[in-house]
Amino acid sequence: MSELKNDRFLRALLRQPVDMTPVWMMRQAGRYLPEYRATREKAGSFMDLCMNPELACEVTLQPLERFPLDAAILFSDILTVPDAMGLGLYFEEGEGPRFKRPLRDEAGVAAIGVPDPEQELRYVMDAVRTIRRELDGRVPLIGFSGSPWTLATYMVEGGSSKDFRHIKAMMYDRPDLLHKVLEVTSQAVIQYLNAQIAAGAQAVMVFDTWGGALSPRTYKAFSLAYMERIVQGLTREAEGRAVPVILFTKNGGQWLEDMAATGCDALGLDWTSDIGDARKRVGDKVALQGNLDPCVLYASKDTIRREVGLVLEGYGKGTGHVFNLGHGIHPQVDPEHAAAMVEAVHELSKPYHR
Amino acid sequence: MSELKNDRFLRALLRQPVDMTPVWMMRQAGRYLPEYRATREKAGSFMDLCMNPELACEVTLQPLERFPLDAAILFSDILTVPDAMGLGLYFEEGEGPRFKRPLRDEAGVAAIGVPDPEQELRYVMDAVRTIRRELDGRVPLIGFSGSPWTLATYMVEGGSSKDFRHIKAMMYDRPDLLHKVLEVTSQAVIQYLNAQIAAGAQAVMVFDTWGGALSPRTYKAFSLAYMERIVQGLTREAEGRAVPVILFTKNGGQWLEDMAATGCDALGLDWTSDIGDARKRVGDKVALQGNLDPCVLYASKDTIRREVGLVLEGYGKGTGHVFNLGHGIHPQVDPEHAAAMVEAVHELSKPYHR
Repeated sequence: MSELKNDRFLRALLRQPVDMTPVWMMRQAGRYLPEYRATREKAGSFMDLCMNPELACEVTLQPLERFPLDAAILFSDILTVPDAMGLGLYFEEGEGPRFKRPLRDEAGVAAIGVPDPEQELRYVMDAVRTIRRELDGRVPLIGFSGSPWTLATYMVEGGSSKDFRHIKAMMYDRPDLLHKVLEVTSQAVIQYLNAQIAAGAQAVMVFDTWGGALSPRTYKAFSLAYMERIVQGLTREAEGRAVPVILFTKNGGQWLEDMAATGCDALGLDWTSDIGDARKRVGDKVALQGNLDPCVLYASKDTIRREVGLVLEGYGKGTGHVFNLGHGIHPQVDPEHAAAMVEAVHELSKPYHR
Repeated sequence: MSELKNDRFLRALLRQPVDMTPVWMMRQAGRYLPEYRATREKAGSFMDLCMNPELACEVTLQPLERFPLDAAILFSDILTVPDAMGLGLYFEEGEGPRFKRPLRDEAGVAAIGVPDPEQELRYVMDAVRTIRRELDGRVPLIGFSGSPWTLATYMVEGGSSKDFRHIKAMMYDRPDLLHKVLEVTSQAVIQYLNAQIAAGAQAVMVFDTWGGALSPRTYKAFSLAYMERIVQGLTREAEGRAVPVILFTKNGGQWLEDMAATGCDALGLDWTSDIGDARKRVGDKVALQGNLDPCVLYASKDTIRREVGLVLEGYGKGTGHVFNLGHGIHPQVDPEHAAAMVEAVHELSKPYHR
C-alpha cells in the first residue's frame, strides 16, 4: 500500500493535532455531480453501479478530482447487507428500495444468517481494494455500514417507511424477535466492516439514519446497544495505524453522552445540535464530525463562507473536529457551492489550530 | 355558555390538582375512525370538510362519542391561514397541499396581509361556535394554529417539502425578507387565535411541525421568537377562566428550556424525549403534554397498557401532565386500541394524584 500523504482526517478523529480542519461531505459521490450522473447512466441501475467495482471506484474518486477533500468514502449502499442476508433487494420505479421477503414472523427471522463478506459481498470488498489502489495514498478511505436498527427497519418494513409500523409493533409486542434480528444483523455488520478494513478501509462509519425515530429507552435498547457491540467487535488497527470508528444517529442530538460511552472515536452530528454545546457535553471522549445544515449550500457563496465560519467558531480551538454537512449533500446543489464550502473550511480553520 | 362539566384538561395545563391525568389525542378526529371517513365522503374534499361548520363540528365530536376524552379539538387545517392571506391553497391528487402563489420575492412578500378572522376565516369561527354549542360543556374545546415558521415553510416552498430548499435559501441569504413573512404571519396567527378564543376556544395550541428542521440558532431566531410574540399577544382569559397556551415543536426536545421561557403554559412533547427528564428540565414553569410513541397503538392492548404506565411513571406524581400521543394518531390504527390507551390513562393515573 502507498504511504498516506494526507492523514488530517484520521488525526482529527483521534484528536491529534492538525494544521487545518479536515473536511469531507456525506454523499460527496452523488447526483449533484454531472460526472456522477454520467457514470450512473453508463452503469444502469443504482445497484448495478454499487455492484461494479470499477465504476464504484470511478464515482468514489470523482469528488476528489474537483475539491481538495480530506477523505474518500466507499461508494455503496447500506442495503447491500440485508440483500446478502437473503431478503431479495429490488427497486421499484419511484418507490425506493424494497425487499421481496420482509421479516415479519419467527420463520422469516429464523431463516436469516450472517453472510460471508468475501463471498456474497465480494463486490464491495473488490470496490474497496480497487479504490485503495487508485487513491494511491492521496487521502484515507472510509468504509461504512448501516446500523443494525436502521437496516432492520428496511428488513421488517420491506422498504422505506414513514411510521415504522411493522418494526415498532414487533419491538413493542415481540422484543425477543426483534432482538434476534438485531443480533444476527450486528454480527453481519461486524464481519462486513472488518472485511472492509482488511480490504483497505482506513476508518469506518456506522449510519443510524432512523435511530432518531425511537424513544430514549428504545433507542438505547434497540439501536445503541447494537452499535456498541459493533464498536467492540471491530478491528481497531490495520497497516500499523488506528482505524477510527464514527457513529452517526440522525436526530440523535439528545443522546450524545450515551453514544460517546460506546467506545467509538467520533460522533457524527446533524445540524439540529449546536457543535459547541455538543463538544462540552462529550468532553474529550470523542471527536465530532459535522454539522453544517446541508441547505446552506443552496445559499450564496458569501453566505456559505459565513456559515462555515460559524460552525468552526462553534467548535472552537484545537483538534477533534472533522468538518462535514449534517446530512448528505442534496442532489440539486451546485457543485461550485460545495467547492466554496471546502475552500472556506481549510482557509478559515487555520487560526483554530495554531 | 353551559357550565364546564369536566375541567381536568384545563386544570392540568395550569398545574392545578386533578383526580386523574387528562387525555386527548392529536388528530383524534381523523381517518382511523370509520365515522370520520363517512362524513368526509359526504363533505367532498378535505378542505370542503374544514369549510363546512356543521360537518367540522360533527367530526370534532365523533371521538368523544367513542372514548371518554378530556378535551375536544377544533377540526381544521393549519393552512387555512396562508390560504386566507391570498396564497391560493389547492390540493393535487396524491401530492398534498399546494399554493398557487408561493412567496419567493419582495413583490410576493409585500403583497401578503393579515386576514380578518371573522371575514376570510369566518367558517373556522363558525365551526368553533357550533362545536361549543354542541359540546354543551362536556369537555373544553382546544383551538389551534400552525406556528409562523411552519406556515412559512408551506408559503415559501409552495407546498410540502423534504429539504426546505427555498425557505432555507431565503433564511440564509435574505433573512430580512423571511422575517417580514414571519412578522405578518405572526400577526395573522395572533388575530386568528384570539378570534377562536372569542368564539369559544378554551385553550389554544401552536403546532410547530417543522421547527425541528432548524439548527438551534435558526430555531430561536426564525421559529421560537415568533411563537413567543404569539404567546405575548394572546387573550389569556375568557369566560372568567384562564385560556392556557400550549407550544409544540416536533423534534424540539433539545430546546425545551427555551420554549418554557416564552411564557406559555404547557409544552407538547414528542416521544423522542423522556418525559421525566423533560419535567426536571422545565421545573414548575410549564405543564407537559405527551408523549406516547403513536406506534405503540399498533401493538396489542396489553402492550399499550404497559407503555401508558411507563409514560405515567416517567412523569411521576402530581399535576401538570396532559396525556397525549407524541404526534398525530396514525390512520391505520384500530379505534379499539385508542380506546385501550384512553382507559389505561384514566385507570393507571389515579395513584399519581392521591
